[in-house]
Amino acid sequence: MLTADTFGYIAAGLTTFAFLPQVIKTWRSKKAEDVSIVMLMLFISGLIFWIIYAIQAQAYPVLIANTITLILNTTILSLKLIYQKEKTS
Amino acid sequence: MLTADTFGYIAAGLTTFAFLPQVIKTWRSKKAEDVSIVMLMLFISGLIFWIIYAIQAQAYPVLIANTITLILNTTILSLKLIYQKEKTS
Repeated sequence: MLTADTFGYIAAGLTTFAFLPQVIKTWRSKKAEDVSIVMLMLFISGLIFWIIYAIQAQAYPVLIANTITLILNTTILSLKLIYQKEKTS
Repeated sequence: MLTADTFGYIAAGLTTFAFLPQVIKTWRSKKAEDVSIVMLMLFISGLIFWIIYAIQAQAYPVLIANTITLILNTTILSLKLIYQKEKTS
């Protein structure tokens, strides 16, 4: 029988690294028009609050997972803004 | 001084409802070509594991947040597949 923690670690791994294919897709296609900028900004804000929570609560798995997710989502947002700017200039 | 839990609840609210603007954007534009299907599938799988974890660990805030996130992301994936099919048929 798998413990709750095992399911938690599998869950954390999947929801963290899920954003890697989006980074690769955006990088390759050089566009992310259909990706909502409001979603990215709300999600990134949420991740910053998760990191503050994790530091205060000393919840290290939460800290690690959300830091990686933050890096990946900031990359997606940056690529979206760069390609958008290139297109309009 | 805000407690760790307060930051946790703000974080959960933001990372849960972040996907609502993506649902609205996809619904309005009738396309989600730039949204990675691999991301959506990995993320949805991760959310299912978060729900199993939350039920086993009786972590109700985690259960509620991830259930709403699952509904929103399943909607995004469904809309993407519907609009993709309409385009190719």
